[in-house]
Amino acid sequence: MVTMAVAGVSGRMGRMLVDRIDATEGATLAAVLERPGHDWIDADLGTALGGRPRGLVVGSDTDAALDAAEVLVDFTAPAATVAFAQAAARLGRGHVIGTTGFAPGDIEAIDAAAAAGATIVRAGNMSLGVNLLARVVEQVARALGEGFDIEIVEAHHRHKVDAPSGTALMLGEAAARGRGVSLDAVADRGRDGMTGARRPGAIGFAAIRGGDIVGEHEVMFAGEGETIALSHRATDRGLFARGAVRAALWAADRPAGHYDMMDVLGLN
Amino acid sequence: MVTMAVAGVSGRMGRMLVDRIDATEGATLAAVLERPGHDWIDADLGTALGGRPRGLVVGSDTDAALDAAEVLVDFTAPAATVAFAQAAARLGRGHVIGTTGFAPGDIEAIDAAAAAGATIVRAGNMSLGVNLLARVVEQVARALGEGFDIEIVEAHHRHKVDAPSGTALMLGEAAARGRGVSLDAVADRGRDGMTGARRPGAIGFAAIRGGDIVGEHEVMFAGEGETIALSHRATDRGLFARGAVRAALWAADRPAGHYDMMDVLGLN
Amino acid sequence: MVTMAVAGVSGRMGRMLVDRIDATEGATLAAVLERPGHDWIDADLGTALGGRPRGLVVGSDTDAALDAAEVLVDFTAPAATVAFAQAAARLGRGHVIGTTGFAPGDIEAIDAAAAAGATIVRAGNMSLGVNLLARVVEQVARALGEGFDIEIVEAHHRHKVDAPSGTALMLGEAAARGRGVSLDAVADRGRDGMTGARRPGAIGFAAIRGGDIVGEHEVMFAGEGETIALSHRATDRGLFARGAVRAALWAADRPAGHYDMMDVLGLN
Amino acid sequence: MVTMAVAGVSGRMGRMLVDRIDATEGATLAAVLERPGHDWIDADLGTALGGRPRGLVVGSDTDAALDAAEVLVDFTAPAATVAFAQAAARLGRGHVIGTTGFAPGDIEAIDAAAAAGATIVRAGNMSLGVNLLARVVEQVARALGEGFDIEIVEAHHRHKVDAPSGTALMLGEAAARGRGVSLDAVADRGRDGMTGARRPGAIGFAAIRGGDIVGEHEVMFAGEGETIALSHRATDRGLFARGAVRAALWAADRPAGHYDMMDVLGLN
Repeated sequence: MVTMAVAGVSGRMGRMLVDRIDATEGATLAAVLERPGHDWIDADLGTALGGRPRGLVVGSDTDAALDAAEVLVDFTAPAATVAFAQAAARLGRGHVIGTTGFAPGDIEAIDAAAAAGATIVRAGNMSLGVNLLARVVEQVARALGEGFDIEIVEAHHRHKVDAPSGTALMLGEAAARGRGVSLDAVADRGRDGMTGARRPGAIGFAAIRGGDIVGEHEVMFAGEGETIALSHRATDRGLFARGAVRAALWAADRPAGHYDMMDVLGLN
Repeated sequence: MVTMAVAGVSGRMGRMLVDRIDATEGATLAAVLERPGHDWIDADLGTALGGRPRGLVVGSDTDAALDAAEVLVDFTAPAATVAFAQAAARLGRGHVIGTTGFAPGDIEAIDAAAAAGATIVRAGNMSLGVNLLARVVEQVARALGEGFDIEIVEAHHRHKVDAPSGTALMLGEAAARGRGVSLDAVADRGRDGMTGARRPGAIGFAAIRGGDIVGEHEVMFAGEGETIALSHRATDRGLFARGAVRAALWAADRPAGHYDMMDVLGLN
Repeated sequence: MVTMAVAGVSGRMGRMLVDRIDATEGATLAAVLERPGHDWIDADLGTALGGRPRGLVVGSDTDAALDAAEVLVDFTAPAATVAFAQAAARLGRGHVIGTTGFAPGDIEAIDAAAAAGATIVRAGNMSLGVNLLARVVEQVARALGEGFDIEIVEAHHRHKVDAPSGTALMLGEAAARGRGVSLDAVADRGRDGMTGARRPGAIGFAAIRGGDIVGEHEVMFAGEGETIALSHRATDRGLFARGAVRAALWAADRPAGHYDMMDVLGLN
Repeated sequence: MVTMAVAGVSGRMGRMLVDRIDATEGATLAAVLERPGHDWIDADLGTALGGRPRGLVVGSDTDAALDAAEVLVDFTAPAATVAFAQAAARLGRGHVIGTTGFAPGDIEAIDAAAAAGATIVRAGNMSLGVNLLARVVEQVARALGEGFDIEIVEAHHRHKVDAPSGTALMLGEAAARGRGVSLDAVADRGRDGMTGARRPGAIGFAAIRGGDIVGEHEVMFAGEGETIALSHRATDRGLFARGAVRAALWAADRPAGHYDMMDVLGLN
């Protein structure tokens, strides 16, 4: 049984993590954290969630939580995450990080925590499928060469404010790596009007927005007379919680270090 | 048996029309035309095509061709097409027009020819499937209303120089018509960067370019919890010849008038 | 404001209907029903659902519910539904029926209720998208003729026990109607082994099962050099509640009669 | 410049190979073969193909052809192919085999030829894309495990007489290998009627037939809240010629041995 703690438990992602840990065989929820001063501090988690009490009190003491839990799962914010990583290093714990938006200095601090004893798994997209897809895209781009044109199409809900999605760019980076080029040098975004013929070696991006689409990504390799398409469709935001809990199970008995989802999947 | 003539027979489209008429039960090729001075004039068609003679001589006399044929099939250029329409009016013949790029005055001249006795079928895209799709898109857009976001995605080969495709815009016009709005007012093209949330009522376009894709179009209606997608895929450029010959068979026994592929399909 | 009642409120579909009515502008929940003897009878609905009281008591008296509500929404079972329809007729109310599994005699009783004063909307699949798709499939099948092969592909979650899905068969019926044939005579199901070439005029079915796919249906029309595909994807089971509440809003000011979702969509 | 010979040059595949070699930089057509007694023997290839003479005479002497060419490309029949492999061994040549339908003894004879000096590349499907896809499917099946349900959907033209396609089965074998199971033990084909819930670990197959679809294959991995799909679409039968010529270029400077397309792609 791997004991887990959840940081930022009152948020949308925190609640999903609680549900997921509860539903996962071999995982048990041992501690839940909120920031000092939050309404939920000292409340029973079950009651705070609008249900029955469950005998687990929301706290703000990281070290106490890491005393009780082998791995902390954390989708909060950069400053909090760095502090959590340092605590994990001190206590020799696992730390699964789904937080995004780090500055370069934050990454250095996380690296230092990993070197000092924390077992860290960090990924911008915790979905198992997307991480696996990125790996496959890199391989296929390497194998096929420039006779096949690479296009990345993504679809998201109507509220998304940027294009292409971060995950589409991550897949583009993987494709560019497979070809040994820089994505910045070859990306072709926002096609419209008299574009001229496709530039050889370009990696194209197209963005679809509508309805409540959770997230779809397709990487096409279009050649002469044949097309390969590698795609991922997320239909449930709980996916990211699932990936994080799988990473936490994996981290529980790993030596200290800074890992990503590729390691969790056994692809590195 | 419907007798047919082909204009511009030496071109890529002219050759496809010959093949298609030869392959169509109930159609027979009775005359073939090229412009005066063309190399093929007075040559046997079979020989000119690099095969065996077939007893049909390439000519440049429109009236003689329309004496021999009930319907002229024509994918040439605006000026020639207007003259063909006037000849079809004089002789009371059918005229299937796949030519594009008309000026408004050309359309008036074609209308006048139809009023004066020509049975004209004219369409920017002669594919049966695309024309049917446009009709269906209009209906569905009308029925679903603005709770469903409309996105039009098209894919074409790497040599295409403009985006979105003319057919994508035709489908967008159909969707806008179904909603009672102007496409110009709602089109959202070339999404890239910090776009902000999707504008309510927008019709989005995305363009994919790669390989030798002949032409794919999808119109998505993305709602809450459900998406309808209506799509067309062309895999063979001979499609347009097929549509034109079907239109010619249809035109053979219709009264004079200016028709489109919707009439041929029985959708008007 | 249209006042609505929900039958079978404790079930999965009943709860979704409550949520949907609460979320719909112009709709208000005025009564909730369970069968006599059910645990929830006389309880406050909010409390029974595990939340705060909302001042609406679960009852079992149909006439009282229909006194309070203009339209009853009902996904229960045939015998209960027939009794609800008769009450709606007596009181001149609307009755939206998502129940399935009727015997022919039940349908006659529902028809009689509609003739006697109930405004009934009944559909096997309450999703707006699927109903619209069926209508479009019928039209397209009629317009394209037998040169295009019709294939219906559906995908559902791993727990589904039958194939093809009821909705796939409904789409097949629509296609067969468009062609003027009987589905039974042309259906081609479960292809495997040495099947021989495709039978002209056949309507093929293929079933995909996996994961937690809510429901996807595609009707392909595969011709020479082109394919049209009309598809629907459901990603949220709340869809059916949404369709039912839309039908209830529509029914509130319609004369008595037996309608279906095509009427609600303005497609009949 | 790699010199190539084509066996069975008068057939559909033979002609495609000629076109492809002519169109490939770095490849030159040095000899063409037909079986003794064939009409084309001793004719000029260009004339036999209905065009201008090209100074290359169709022969039936394998050793003379292999004197002139470094690699023989061969989509003929098992008995002829075995004899060609033995000649390639004697003369130390390359031999690209697209022939199918071998008996086990034939494979042994081909292995023996490879051991005796022939550089053989043999594959049931010469498309680069499909071979690459099979490799990726194996990896993904291994990485994802049984939480993801595998379904293989293929679409082919209306004339195909068997289901699933040989390529679909090849992809199924790859998936089964990735999972460490036997395909025979887990294949679920021709779903229809009351099937019961999906069997854990099953690999499902579905076959679509219609129009002139050249060949489409999709391998889906459907999990909870996410689906990965890996697909290949062939739109041009010339694909197989292209793969064979690429294999021939690759074989020209390889040591003797029995290779497959995975080796050509650098994936083994």
